[in-house]
Amino acid sequence: MKLKNRQTTPEDEFRDLGFGSKISSQRKRMVNKDGSFNVERRSLPFFESLSIYHSLLSMSWLKFNLVVLLAYIVVNLFFASLYMLIGVNHLGGISGVTTFEKFLDAFFFSGQTITTVGYGVIHPVGFWASLISLVESMAGLLGFALATGLLYGRFSRPNAKILYSKKAIIAPYKEITAFEFRIANARKNQLIEVEVQVTASIKESKDINSKRKFYVLNLERNLINFFPLTWTIVHPIDENSPLYGVSETELIDSEAEFIIMIKAFDDTFSQSVHSRTSYLYHEIVWGAKFQNIYVESELNVTAVDMSKFHGIDKVGFLA
Amino acid sequence: MKLKNRQTTPEDEFRDLGFGSKISSQRKRMVNKDGSFNVERRSLPFFESLSIYHSLLSMSWLKFNLVVLLAYIVVNLFFASLYMLIGVNHLGGISGVTTFEKFLDAFFFSGQTITTVGYGVIHPVGFWASLISLVESMAGLLGFALATGLLYGRFSRPNAKILYSKKAIIAPYKEITAFEFRIANARKNQLIEVEVQVTASIKESKDINSKRKFYVLNLERNLINFFPLTWTIVHPIDENSPLYGVSETELIDSEAEFIIMIKAFDDTFSQSVHSRTSYLYHEIVWGAKFQNIYVESELNVTAVDMSKFHGIDKVGFLA
Amino acid sequence: MKLKNRQTTPEDEFRDLGFGSKISSQRKRMVNKDGSFNVERRSLPFFESLSIYHSLLSMSWLKFNLVVLLAYIVVNLFFASLYMLIGVNHLGGISGVTTFEKFLDAFFFSGQTITTVGYGVIHPVGFWASLISLVESMAGLLGFALATGLLYGRFSRPNAKILYSKKAIIAPYKEITAFEFRIANARKNQLIEVEVQVTASIKESKDINSKRKFYVLNLERNLINFFPLTWTIVHPIDENSPLYGVSETELIDSEAEFIIMIKAFDDTFSQSVHSRTSYLYHEIVWGAKFQNIYVESELNVTAVDMSKFHGIDKVGFLA
Amino acid sequence: MKLKNRQTTPEDEFRDLGFGSKISSQRKRMVNKDGSFNVERRSLPFFESLSIYHSLLSMSWLKFNLVVLLAYIVVNLFFASLYMLIGVNHLGGISGVTTFEKFLDAFFFSGQTITTVGYGVIHPVGFWASLISLVESMAGLLGFALATGLLYGRFSRPNAKILYSKKAIIAPYKEITAFEFRIANARKNQLIEVEVQVTASIKESKDINSKRKFYVLNLERNLINFFPLTWTIVHPIDENSPLYGVSETELIDSEAEFIIMIKAFDDTFSQSVHSRTSYLYHEIVWGAKFQNIYVESELNVTAVDMSKFHGIDKVGFLA
Repeated sequence: MKLKNRQTTPEDEFRDLGFGSKISSQRKRMVNKDGSFNVERRSLPFFESLSIYHSLLSMSWLKFNLVVLLAYIVVNLFFASLYMLIGVNHLGGISGVTTFEKFLDAFFFSGQTITTVGYGVIHPVGFWASLISLVESMAGLLGFALATGLLYGRFSRPNAKILYSKKAIIAPYKEITAFEFRIANARKNQLIEVEVQVTASIKESKDINSKRKFYVLNLERNLINFFPLTWTIVHPIDENSPLYGVSETELIDSEAEFIIMIKAFDDTFSQSVHSRTSYLYHEIVWGAKFQNIYVESELNVTAVDMSKFHGIDKVGFLA
Repeated sequence: MKLKNRQTTPEDEFRDLGFGSKISSQRKRMVNKDGSFNVERRSLPFFESLSIYHSLLSMSWLKFNLVVLLAYIVVNLFFASLYMLIGVNHLGGISGVTTFEKFLDAFFFSGQTITTVGYGVIHPVGFWASLISLVESMAGLLGFALATGLLYGRFSRPNAKILYSKKAIIAPYKEITAFEFRIANARKNQLIEVEVQVTASIKESKDINSKRKFYVLNLERNLINFFPLTWTIVHPIDENSPLYGVSETELIDSEAEFIIMIKAFDDTFSQSVHSRTSYLYHEIVWGAKFQNIYVESELNVTAVDMSKFHGIDKVGFLA
Repeated sequence: MKLKNRQTTPEDEFRDLGFGSKISSQRKRMVNKDGSFNVERRSLPFFESLSIYHSLLSMSWLKFNLVVLLAYIVVNLFFASLYMLIGVNHLGGISGVTTFEKFLDAFFFSGQTITTVGYGVIHPVGFWASLISLVESMAGLLGFALATGLLYGRFSRPNAKILYSKKAIIAPYKEITAFEFRIANARKNQLIEVEVQVTASIKESKDINSKRKFYVLNLERNLINFFPLTWTIVHPIDENSPLYGVSETELIDSEAEFIIMIKAFDDTFSQSVHSRTSYLYHEIVWGAKFQNIYVESELNVTAVDMSKFHGIDKVGFLA
Repeated sequence: MKLKNRQTTPEDEFRDLGFGSKISSQRKRMVNKDGSFNVERRSLPFFESLSIYHSLLSMSWLKFNLVVLLAYIVVNLFFASLYMLIGVNHLGGISGVTTFEKFLDAFFFSGQTITTVGYGVIHPVGFWASLISLVESMAGLLGFALATGLLYGRFSRPNAKILYSKKAIIAPYKEITAFEFRIANARKNQLIEVEVQVTASIKESKDINSKRKFYVLNLERNLINFFPLTWTIVHPIDENSPLYGVSETELIDSEAEFIIMIKAFDDTFSQSVHSRTSYLYHEIVWGAKFQNIYVESELNVTAVDMSKFHGIDKVGFLA
């Protein structure tokens, strides 16, 4: 599962890249900043595409806890109603007098059964209450088995987070210029074998029906084995680059989008992780360089100051 | 674990591909539409090949729930019988009078023990009942531990689903023709690094004993890094293609089968996923093209209309 | 993680392959039939090398269940002794009269606490009994949490099983001969992308101190994408082969061992699986071929008769 | 995810390798002996970088158990306070007289509820106590569900441990010399497909501002398929080596650091595992060879004596 990083000449156009040829009709981006695709699939069968497990896995913790709590209440209300239905006199030890109080007692008995706490002060009497509580306690165990799996699934999902510099830059580089951006690991996880691929999507002309062409950009380096601090990814704009000789205005007119794909191995969790983002033409600063992030450290370590991570200094071009 | 996509010349025959040379004796397919292999292994030791875990993992949810419920009832019946055997007077707090009622009480006590709800109204009295309930409660915990693992295993299995166009087509393509089919992601999972391999299995002659030859087809593109919408896989029928100059009738006579293997990385679950299918000769439409699936979107996104996914329009060949 | 299958010339000796150069001093095999290595590491720190989790994961189910049961009994005996120590009068509701009966009651109370069944008939009275039962119930929950994880770990381990033909053969092959063996999938799991590597370990001379050389054998085919039935792996003995011109007696004198490494992807569990075995010189049959395993099937499928899997027919060599 | 092992010429300098060009200002190492990076990221948002799950996964067992115990006590104190707040008369069956005794009873009731042991001797009376105990028992189940997942996560993490020889050596090798070190598998897990990469980081001159250059060293062998015993990794110091003609003093002056990256597949757990370490200039012994570790075994196995693993014998150089 290596990223294919083959250099493409202008002739080597990706016919669709999964986006189709119509993507250029408006000034929209293909990949959102958070890495999701800016697409929409209509008429997809609802139940086919639905994945309850996936939803429960990816929702926020707040939402997840609310869902669990709600499910707990709803199920208890359901079973309490069942106990009321067969007659609350099938529950021994209840102390409620009014119907509402009796319902509350049934509700609490239901909770004590489904969590298997089973104090026994309120207890089933006779066949039907015993049967329902039997079913409920099993349902409770299975339900919490499910919650266990979900909690583990939520925790063990890869949570690598790559930090991208807010802006990409066109900076002086050796005798020429280069397209550059900077990444850092926002987590304490150890990321290794980090690979990056940059694809430029460029409109051929200003014509509204003109198609987009896709170029995999040649990088100074597309793999690092260690990723302890930060990494500046550099695409030298030489004669092989689709950006060669392109001015700032031309780049804006071409509605260029630079799609970034990063793949790494999370050494902490022994998992492959992926990250995506994109830089649209207006997120590129010309004639700039990234601020130095390395600081002199008292300790015997190499240190960086992450507060300067997004920092950019304007520079003139040599040429 | 990359798919090997090497182009094979007619001489480069796969000697068996695991199917053996006798597969051509009848007009049967090797790979079923759902990706399973159309084969049968006889005399395989039953217990060797059996995998209870796998069965419990891959059966439908309905079946799984029924199995769990049945196991729950059977185990409770077993323990209730044990309590009857040692004498139901070893259970305190039972209210049944007839033997059947007493058995029911033992059954419910068993349920309260195995789920560890333990109200305590019915409770063990003396050594044997205490011992059996001790064993039962541990068995219950282990059983539900098992169910927890199974539930998690069922949920966390990769559930990517690739949608294949119902028909493959032989379509005009540049100056020549091409064998094409279309795929889409039927789930909301993000699939990336999608690789495809197409193997053509072609009978050499009409002779019933003639062997099949296998060709890995050259694709216009066999990998895409993103798979947000759909992807049309194209095999150009040029002079290197085993389909070069083959007519529709000849293809039918050769009982051609196109075996599709797709491999992708599910970004949502950080798992490799695989999908297989095949197109038999009668599932190929000659002189057709896929309907345009891209729609103009009001929103700032690229949109497709999945209801047109299988749609095919007849076209004449240029030549 | 691809198997490297590079053809080695006789000069290209593996210096140690992790076995060292002294391995040839006796007629022993390097890889056992079950794929484990026939080696011994002495003076390895005991606790460093010990992996309780691994042991609990790989032991037989019988042994695992016994370990769980034993742990359950031992822990209950321990807590029962604690309750006796603080005075059994701190447990309410016990009915035992003699010390042994009281100990039994404490034992059963311990079991009811650790499984959290908690009938409540026997119950803690006062501070110390309450405290101990508080700790015990938590220990019980953690213990069963652990058992849950272990059970899941045991079930979800890859359990692919490759069946190897009992004998390898030296068979006529085209104009020459070939070293061949046969494999099959003994499970119902779908194995795909099966790769094989065969390494021959050959002693240079009869001299007891002579070193072994290792050759990676050139295979007719070292990868199949599907593995529905069986696969005969073929090493053609041509002029590049280290077996070229070697007679049966010479092979025995060289104490040849053929180490087989197989790697596959288990499509059912989405896991990489590995298998190893070896054929020693006396497990190779000269002038033989494998029996045909394919059978005519009434159904519309390709069928094999696994009872013939190990079958070998003697044949004369053409030359 | 293969390690890239391309030989680099002196011109082929890694621009930063993620460490930046300032790393040479002091005599510090980049990779610590335990494989962690000797770096520091400042001003990283605290909550962004924090991963509670990761911390709970990687802390020692002692610490983990203390955290669980502490959480258990704190939560019980919290709920006991709640029961006191609503009035301890809402708990039936308590026997305490003083406030402290009543608090203890509430504390024990809380424990019996959160573990779902629920003896029922102490039990909730009325709405508020019932409600709180309902919430507590659910919280308890979820908490222990979480603990289950954590325990499983802790156990199932890859725990391969590569043992590195304490010193690397510059040893006579064929006609030249070689940089060598030795590794062994410190666990009983079966490691296969072991790949190694050695990167040398060398300062260009004694100048305090001089930059470091990075060289991927050419190895005699960078992959072994089996790793049953030990493996001596050998970098021959030929004319392509950056160490060619370098004396011991020069190596010290260049503050050389050899960064080792090892990748393997743990056959026991079906997981990729990684290991890192580094040898600093003062950890290299010149003119030495590793002691023979292979021992004559009575049994029919190849045996090594791990107590000699770190052993080095001084030898004179031939030249």
